[in-house]
Amino acid sequence: MFELHQRIAADTVPVTEWPLCRVLLMNDSTYPWLLLVPRRAGVVEITDLDPADQHALLDEIARASTALRQALAPHRINVAALGNVVAQLHVHVIARDTDDAAWPKPVWGAVPATPYTPEALETRLAQLRAVLG
Amino acid sequence: MFELHQRIAADTVPVTEWPLCRVLLMNDSTYPWLLLVPRRAGVVEITDLDPADQHALLDEIARASTALRQALAPHRINVAALGNVVAQLHVHVIARDTDDAAWPKPVWGAVPATPYTPEALETRLAQLRAVLG
Repeated sequence: MFELHQRIAADTVPVTEWPLCRVLLMNDSTYPWLLLVPRRAGVVEITDLDPADQHALLDEIARASTALRQALAPHRINVAALGNVVAQLHVHVIARDTDDAAWPKPVWGAVPATPYTPEALETRLAQLRAVLG
Repeated sequence: MFELHQRIAADTVPVTEWPLCRVLLMNDSTYPWLLLVPRRAGVVEITDLDPADQHALLDEIARASTALRQALAPHRINVAALGNVVAQLHVHVIARDTDDAAWPKPVWGAVPATPYTPEALETRLAQLRAVLG
């Protein structure tokens, strides 16, 4: 049975459910930062997904990227499946701008996370749900 | 017309050609580190690829991941399309071990690249070509 890893659950806010993935927002107002987590038990690497799910994952990465571009017109989308700390497969889809706190470096470890205020979180979720569906 | 970005060309060694991507080895002996570069002109984001090419990209990411696992049995595969420094779409597929120089952090910026010696490069290329085809 699929269960979201407790560390991911603690760091994120649920946004929506897509055919394959749970879509989450990282609770870090430094960057508009989504996580896609396939609702499949025991999946660690992309290659643990069956081929149809692998294509569905790419489709949902593209859908998330397009939504972030539509809502925010960022300079770049960063996409990554790392999983060195939390093994459960999760894909980062991050809107990057040339004046953000880490640019041009990757976001991991660049600056400490700044949780959203309740108001800013509500605004961000409304903005993202409008494009993420 | 597709042309490999000169910065990528300078940092890598060609390994093989797949239906969509040129497969390259990063010239950094710190990690077994492949780059997949779709041979499509002007492509920056994954969403710039048409849907069939997007699925082909995932297929080739999976193929590279499986080959690295087969050859090296790493602890983890890191997959990332960042492109903050070089815009041309390129996907990192990196074999990670728990005793590597950056673990558990991402590899970018962790330690300076250590180019392969000519002998080590030949050995690595032979090993990878045997599984990458």
